[in-house]
Parts: sequence; C-alpha cells; structure tokens
Amino acid sequence: MKEFALVFQGTAFTSRSTKEIEILKDYLFCINEDGMIEKLVSPESAEYEEIIKQYEFKDSFHRLEKGQYLLPGFVDLHVHAPQWAQSGTALDLPLYDWLNTYTFPIESKFSDIEFAEKVYDDLVRTLLANGTTTVLYFATVHKEASILLAEICAKQGQRGLVGKVVMDNVDQCPPDYRDKDTETALKETEEFIIAVKDLAKSTKQGVYPVVTPRFIPSCTDEALEGLGRLAAKYDTHIQSHCSESDWEHEYVIDRFNKHDAFALNDFGLLQDKSIMAHCTFLADDDAELFAETGTAISHCPISNVFFSNGVLPVAHLHSKGVDIGLGTDISGGFSPSLFDNARQAVISSRMLEEGVDPKLPKETRGVPSSRITMNEAFYLATAGGGDALSLPIGKIEENFAWDVQIIDTLIPSAKLPLFNERLDEVFEKIMYLSRPENIREVWVQGNLVHKRN
Amino acid sequence: MKEFALVFQGTAFTSRSTKEIEILKDYLFCINEDGMIEKLVSPESAEYEEIIKQYEFKDSFHRLEKGQYLLPGFVDLHVHAPQWAQSGTALDLPLYDWLNTYTFPIESKFSDIEFAEKVYDDLVRTLLANGTTTVLYFATVHKEASILLAEICAKQGQRGLVGKVVMDNVDQCPPDYRDKDTETALKETEEFIIAVKDLAKSTKQGVYPVVTPRFIPSCTDEALEGLGRLAAKYDTHIQSHCSESDWEHEYVIDRFNKHDAFALNDFGLLQDKSIMAHCTFLADDDAELFAETGTAISHCPISNVFFSNGVLPVAHLHSKGVDIGLGTDISGGFSPSLFDNARQAVISSRMLEEGVDPKLPKETRGVPSSRITMNEAFYLATAGGGDALSLPIGKIEENFAWDVQIIDTLIPSAKLPLFNERLDEVFEKIMYLSRPENIREVWVQGNLVHKRN
Repeated sequence: MKEFALVFQGTAFTSRSTKEIEILKDYLFCINEDGMIEKLVSPESAEYEEIIKQYEFKDSFHRLEKGQYLLPGFVDLHVHAPQWAQSGTALDLPLYDWLNTYTFPIESKFSDIEFAEKVYDDLVRTLLANGTTTVLYFATVHKEASILLAEICAKQGQRGLVGKVVMDNVDQCPPDYRDKDTETALKETEEFIIAVKDLAKSTKQGVYPVVTPRFIPSCTDEALEGLGRLAAKYDTHIQSHCSESDWEHEYVIDRFNKHDAFALNDFGLLQDKSIMAHCTFLADDDAELFAETGTAISHCPISNVFFSNGVLPVAHLHSKGVDIGLGTDISGGFSPSLFDNARQAVISSRMLEEGVDPKLPKETRGVPSSRITMNEAFYLATAGGGDALSLPIGKIEENFAWDVQIIDTLIPSAKLPLFNERLDEVFEKIMYLSRPENIREVWVQGNLVHKRN
Repeated sequence: MKEFALVFQGTAFTSRSTKEIEILKDYLFCINEDGMIEKLVSPESAEYEEIIKQYEFKDSFHRLEKGQYLLPGFVDLHVHAPQWAQSGTALDLPLYDWLNTYTFPIESKFSDIEFAEKVYDDLVRTLLANGTTTVLYFATVHKEASILLAEICAKQGQRGLVGKVVMDNVDQCPPDYRDKDTETALKETEEFIIAVKDLAKSTKQGVYPVVTPRFIPSCTDEALEGLGRLAAKYDTHIQSHCSESDWEHEYVIDRFNKHDAFALNDFGLLQDKSIMAHCTFLADDDAELFAETGTAISHCPISNVFFSNGVLPVAHLHSKGVDIGLGTDISGGFSPSLFDNARQAVISSRMLEEGVDPKLPKETRGVPSSRITMNEAFYLATAGGGDALSLPIGKIEENFAWDVQIIDTLIPSAKLPLFNERLDEVFEKIMYLSRPENIREVWVQGNLVHKRN
C-alpha cells in the first residue's frame, strides 16, 4: 500500500449539494504528500482496520477526541485587509461617505510598510484562528504592501489570493490615495502579478495574484480595459465590487447606461475565475450573464446591512445557476468570522422572506421563498467558495486539499449545549454556536497552521 | 475614612443616557460590604492618591491590567431556561408549529429533576461566562424544577428572576405538558413564590419569583386574573409574551377583540415590574399604555428574525417613552450572548430603516429613522434592563450593585484589532468584536462569580 503523509480518524461534515450535508461518521481521511485527500475510508470498508493497524502508533496518525468534529476550512471571498485596522468602528455613514471619510484615509496609511506588516500579520493570524483557510484579499494601491500581504499568507500557511487595488480615476479618488496614473497602475499590477507568481513557487498551499479594479467608479475605462487584458495574459483571478448599493449601481448606469455586470463584461472582467462582491442590485439578465460567464458572487451579509441598501436574494440567484460564496468584507462587515457571516446569511434571508415592517399587511411584507437554511449557508462558506475560485477546496472529498478545522464541542470553557443529539443536530449547534475557542486546529494543504492548547 | 470591601482601579464604560456612553477613565470604584458601589473617584479628586495608598497592597485592591476595561454586567430580560437543550436547532417552523413540534415536548422533560439540573447548571454557568449577571427566566410548568433553577442561580451567584410557567388552557396546550387545572396552577404559583422569597434570604445578590403566564393563548381568563392578584399580593415581577407574531397577535384579537396589551392590563398584569417579551406588533395606543403603566419590553432581536414576522421599532418606541431592555430568548434566539444580541439589535434596526427588498424603489423600501447605534444597543443590554426590572443594576454609578464584567482586549488568543484608537472607538470594538474569551472576570453584587485564567 502507498504511504500516506497523514491519516485522520473521526467524524466530518461536508456539503453533498447546496442544500444537503454529508456526514462521514468515524471515517479515515488519508492525505498524500501534496496535502491532498487521497482516500476516504468508511468504517465498513475492508481496509479500515488494516490502515488503523498500520498507522495508529505513528506521528502521522491523528484520532479526533470525543466531541471533536472536522469541518472544511472556510473560504472567505471578500476581505479588505487594510480595513482590519478599523473593524468594528465607522459603521454610521452610507457607502460613498464611508469610503471618503474613513476608508480611503486608513488605506492610504499602507504606504508605511511597517504599519502594513503589523496589521496584515495580525489579520492573517486572526482569520486562521477563525477557521478560514483560503482568503480572497483586496490590499491597497501600494505595490510593496500588497506583495507583503502575499508573503505573510505564504509564511503563515494560508491560501491567500491577493490583489493590488487599482484606483486611477481622479474624479472619484482622493489625491493622496490613488494610482499615479493609468499607465503606472497597469505597470505596477503586472509587476505585482509576476512577483506573486514567483512567490507562489515557494509555497505548498499556493498564493495567487488577483487583478483588482476596486470598482467601476474608481477606475478609468483605460484601466478597466488594461486589467481585463492582464488577467487574460496571466490567467489570473479577477475581483471587484458589483451593484453594491443604490449609489454605486446608479453611478454605473449614469456612466455607461448599463448595469455593472454588462459594463464589467465589456472590459473582459467576467470569466470563470471572476468573483464580484455584493451584487445586491443584480437584475435577472445580469444574473444570467454571471451564470454564462462562470462569474461568482461573494455574498457579504453583515456588510450588506450597513452599506448595501438591501438583501442579496441568494435563493433566487442559486435557482438561476449563479455560483455564490461567502465573504466577511472586513471592515464593511465587522466580524472576521465566517461562522458569524453564515449565521447572518440565514438571518438576512429570513428577514427578506418575512419583511421587516410590522405595520405592513403580512401579505406584502416580504419576498416569499427567500429563506436559506444553515446547510446552505455552510455550503456558501465552504464548497461555494471553492467553486467560485475554481480550486479543489471547500469539501472533504477525494482529490480536494486537506484544508480543515477541528471543532471541539466539549472543552469546558466553551462547551456547546449538547444533550444526546443526532449528528445532524450536532452540526447545526456547531454552526450556530461555536466560537473561535472551539476551533482547536486548522490545517491547510496538509500543514498545521493554527493550534490551541 | 470608612473601610471599603473592594476597590477597583481602571477604565469603565457605562450609559449616560439611552444614546450616550460615559467613559470613566482610570477611576477608582469603591464597593461596600453589601456589594454596592459606594463611591466613584476620578483621578482628579483629592482623595484618589490617598485611597490608592491605603489599599494598593491589600487583597481587596484590584488594578485592571493594560488593555482591560470594565463594563456593567448584562441584564438578559428573556430566557426560556429549559430550551437551552435545543439552542441552535429547530429554527425552521413558524411560532405555533415550533411550540408544538419542538418546544413543548422538550419542556415536558423537565418533570425529570436530574435532567433539569444538568441543563440549568450548564445554562447558568454559560450565561455568567457571557457576562450576563442578571437574568429573567421562564422555567417550565413544573414547580420543583422551577425552584431548582432559582437554587442554581443562588448557588452560582447570578441574580436570577425565575417564573414557574402557567399553562392551563386545554385548547392550546398539549395534554402531557400543562398545569393540571387552573386551581393547581395558581396554588403552585403561590407556593413557588413563597419558596423563592424564602430562598432569597440566603443570597447576597437576590433571587426573585416572577408571575409568569406563558402568554394569553396558553392561559384561561381565570388563570390570568388569579395571576394578576398573586402578583399584587406578593409584589412580584410579572413576565409574559406580548404581540409576538402575526398568529399570536391575531389569536388575542379573536379572543378578546383587543390587543394583548389591553387584555393583559385588564387582568392586572401591566405594572412597573412587568416585562413583556417581543411586542413586535404593538400599536401606538398599546405603547402608550406600556409607558403609563411602566411596563417594559424585552427586545429579542435574534429570536424575532425566526418567529416574530417583523422587526421591533425600537427607536420609535423609545420616542414614545417605553422602557426597553434586551433578551436572548433562548432558544427562539440561538445565542446565549447579549453581545450577539446587541449586534443584532443594531443590524435589525438598520434593516428596518433600509428595507430588505432591492427590487423595490428606494423611497418605499424601509422605515426612515429606525436605526439605533451601538451605544443604544449597549444601553438596552445594561441600564435599560435595570430600568425594566426596577433594580439598581446595569450602570456603573454610585448606589448601583457591583455587577461588572472585565473585558481583556489584548489576550493573545482573542486580541481585538486595536491600533491606537480613541477610547470611544475601543468601546465600539469591544461591543462589535469581543467573544466570551475576552470576558476574564464577572462580578455580581461584589462577588466574583466567573473567572478565566
């Protein structure tokens, strides 16, 4: 028998479909040297006892303790890394004013590489401690600090997809926080792509450069076009914001006489590795264009409460075949946890279905059939994120990366209220009630990257 | 100078009004033998150095460490203690079906006193660990288990207000989970009141019996009337549910041709120590009746998402002079944390203001001026709860009980993202981002009741 690098024994929860979970009870998980899941072995399988015998006294064998469970690591599709410095504050203004009053000023400080290192190091560590193994990051306009973020991901073992942000539109960006000019923006983006691709070679889990026009308002047509070309040339991921709020959505209609989706597509920015944040105001033909091009939505339910003027209709968009994952949108969203965001995704969907104003007659209060379950929110945080990025992550399945979090439901300081539940109920309690404290270990591509003693 | 039992030195946050916080920077907090705050001493005061000199080497002196802050202990105005066993599950049905399918069956198990002890002990410990120092509890119909809950609060040092639930209406309650008859319901309630008043004598922090008709549908007119009389006879607190959901609100209109508020008032159940959960469908004249009688609302924002068919208009009700506090409503709400509920109170208020359906024109989407700030949500979780209960709790102020939580923002495993903020920003980050792990000590009436090492 081939030698495995790691063998885990325990019970795992993973998505079988957008709506159903699969419970792998007392399985063996056999990981190869590349950190990929080579084989899942059920207790009924003939080789189950044989593998245990072969590995149980080796260091590579990990038996989960009573009350511990495996979940896939979370995939966070939208983080503004520099904004970690202001998380949990500055939630009182609408999007346009928020950007200009709080956010652009704090991002401009990331020309200071020491400050950047302090914030980025703390953020990557925090996200790992929250069970997030893959992150799609916006950095800032600064090339050096953006490369530094990728280096910190590489060093801490997180699968980071990082974008140097492009903002070259003098009408919409402050003088002290924007690219020097369009040519420089594109040149530095290309240098950034090359540097991160080079860095990636020294990592096991991969780090990836991402073409990142902040959003249409920040960018000139020339920059958007040039970025579409760069993404094609280097086959990179693409990220931006799309139809986020009344203001942003209307700005694009005024400028292009079309919605964000069609405008972005004109510039070659919608493709299978494109991920667009928010998309609250996507019309049905926009959604169809997303489905056709393979573009995914990064749903950021906490952030949307403060900045999006409405709730993303997740159930409706899933029914249209659009890929959707979950994002914290630090710091539009205050929480670094995708557990918190999964909970809010369920909550927001229920509020869209029920409506909010008790003075309205119940028939007209909400939008029927909008609710999603916790199983679906879990899918968004895991497999949905993997699909969005077109990477083999987010599921505990053969040929997927060994990106997992080990949840302990019984530690005395953060015990979950378990009183002889079925396993599907244990799963629900984990999703609704666990805290970072319950996350005892986090693994990325077969490497242990976070551990609590 | 009089001898203090405890002296704390540090920075505290407390409510100055519903909308403003007070920052007590580097104060001394002098606590007397009854566990009450005898004196607050500012660093500018003449006796500041003198008190430090007198106490700094005594065991009674507690200097907060760098990064630690004091908050008032939280006041949770609505907990169904037996439902802790199902927290984080069973959130998929409307109120009426949820009660009959999941909730009455689990509550009926509390005839088993051993099971009750296991669940209640775990719950009280968990709430203390979440910074909650005072709790208004629904127990079950069972007298013994209800007394046991009060005993567990007494033993663990929590200020528990506990109600034996009355459910005597055979039309609306299952045969295996209701009071034997109206007479028994009232007799057992009276015995319960006497037993808990007796128990209270042996506690420093106080435990209190609460007259608790579950809600109008569960009770006969005779029971409601008898409970009003018992509350007056023994001067107890009163709790129930009020205008929670479309179904419940309409049931009461059908039965009495009036809203819950006026029906409850007819039975003598609205008074200064009455606390009514939810109240989502309160009309303006109901709200005026609440303000006149001194009845308070227990706002349960997480639970309301799943069971209330709308958002409580907190800002509007505050403007009408109604007292409002915060409740987790375990397990209609899945979280035992009032931090989580304060966050959701802000979120729900923003969603009420913005609306939820992006397909509607922005002018008609939401209800203007509905938002509350985190300062107001903090008020609800602390001082608002104290006001609701007419007890001197929920503020760090002279002649209030020393009920506090010490928050550590710098512990390595749960460090908040602090990078040289102002103190009001530190407060916001604490409210949005702290976890039970950040709560290092909890004190009730001058007694240490929870500590993490």
